[in-house]
Amino acid sequence: MDFSSKLLENAVYEMSQLPGIGKRTALRLVLHLLKQPEERTNLLSEALTDLRAKVNFCKSCHNISDTEICEICSNHKRDKSLVCVVEDIRDVMAIESTSQYNGLYHVLGGKISPMEGIGPQDLSIVSLVNRVKEGEVKELIFALSSTMEGDTTNFYIYKQLEGLDVTTSTIARGIAVGDELEYADEVTLGRSILNRIPFENSIKAS
Amino acid sequence: MDFSSKLLENAVYEMSQLPGIGKRTALRLVLHLLKQPEERTNLLSEALTDLRAKVNFCKSCHNISDTEICEICSNHKRDKSLVCVVEDIRDVMAIESTSQYNGLYHVLGGKISPMEGIGPQDLSIVSLVNRVKEGEVKELIFALSSTMEGDTTNFYIYKQLEGLDVTTSTIARGIAVGDELEYADEVTLGRSILNRIPFENSIKAS
Repeated sequence: MDFSSKLLENAVYEMSQLPGIGKRTALRLVLHLLKQPEERTNLLSEALTDLRAKVNFCKSCHNISDTEICEICSNHKRDKSLVCVVEDIRDVMAIESTSQYNGLYHVLGGKISPMEGIGPQDLSIVSLVNRVKEGEVKELIFALSSTMEGDTTNFYIYKQLEGLDVTTSTIARGIAVGDELEYADEVTLGRSILNRIPFENSIKAS
Repeated sequence: MDFSSKLLENAVYEMSQLPGIGKRTALRLVLHLLKQPEERTNLLSEALTDLRAKVNFCKSCHNISDTEICEICSNHKRDKSLVCVVEDIRDVMAIESTSQYNGLYHVLGGKISPMEGIGPQDLSIVSLVNRVKEGEVKELIFALSSTMEGDTTNFYIYKQLEGLDVTTSTIARGIAVGDELEYADEVTLGRSILNRIPFENSIKAS
């Protein structure tokens, strides 16, 4: 693209560095900002720099937080014997929005992936093991993605916990509520038969 | 969504004010910035505020420019008797990238659209008429979108030019190069037959 302004070119370049934003979209976004009052751009810029400069992660669970210990960890009504292990902050939000979980979290910051050069030392696994060693945690719930990397990470953590007094579980995999059997993939359907649950439990859940 | 951080919530909110960016995408973009070095965020913020604060529009053609008169208008090799009337800056870039046009431009900043409350006074039509009155411009090429609003704008400008010594033309509408006839819409195909051009001209163009 042929820009008549260096300032515009620069803004479009920086915007197009965001994931999923190409040059054309970046240009559309930047031109939109130009049409809006100057305040809009300043609010956006400030919000981003502010977040980046002052961002804080909970010392206990590594969730994003404005305080040293996040709201979830410091909530006395939460069950501190239950810890749900997730990949990133978005998973915490997803589970919180179900209102079905009353325990704490542990955000790993990713999953073990040799292809992307992410090893166990890049994730907050040591601090998870330490949390378990402190003794208050009775059950870990693995809620990582159901992929090769997710399974590897689950297994790695499981091995690290050997000899410690903690139960481990993974979230149930199966046919999504509302889905029709004929369209489900074979692996999911197979697993959902193997890991069937007593009918009484399914009545209680709904 | 339930954010555990006000800073994060604020950044996501501001990001989601951009067109076509929903809350989920905004969250993805903001979390991406968090994973990148702090400099990335600062470069983006600065580029945006810089552009918004220092942005300049060419006094002659209203194209975006870092100087008072843009590079195109101040280029002595350009044909100053030819002015192409376009809606916005992106159209200038699109035409420039064809390398087929050697005249100047006039950026209207939109098109007349009573539905959106945009009247002739919101567009740079007066300055276009003044440019023509100065006498150097011999031909205006209308290159607005082929919509009701585009046609209305063309006609409004055409009426304003009555009595002035200037030729007006519009860019050709027809079947796109590489397109098959059977898939073309009737209006375009009909127009392309009515506005057929001598075969010799089509040989010259290719």
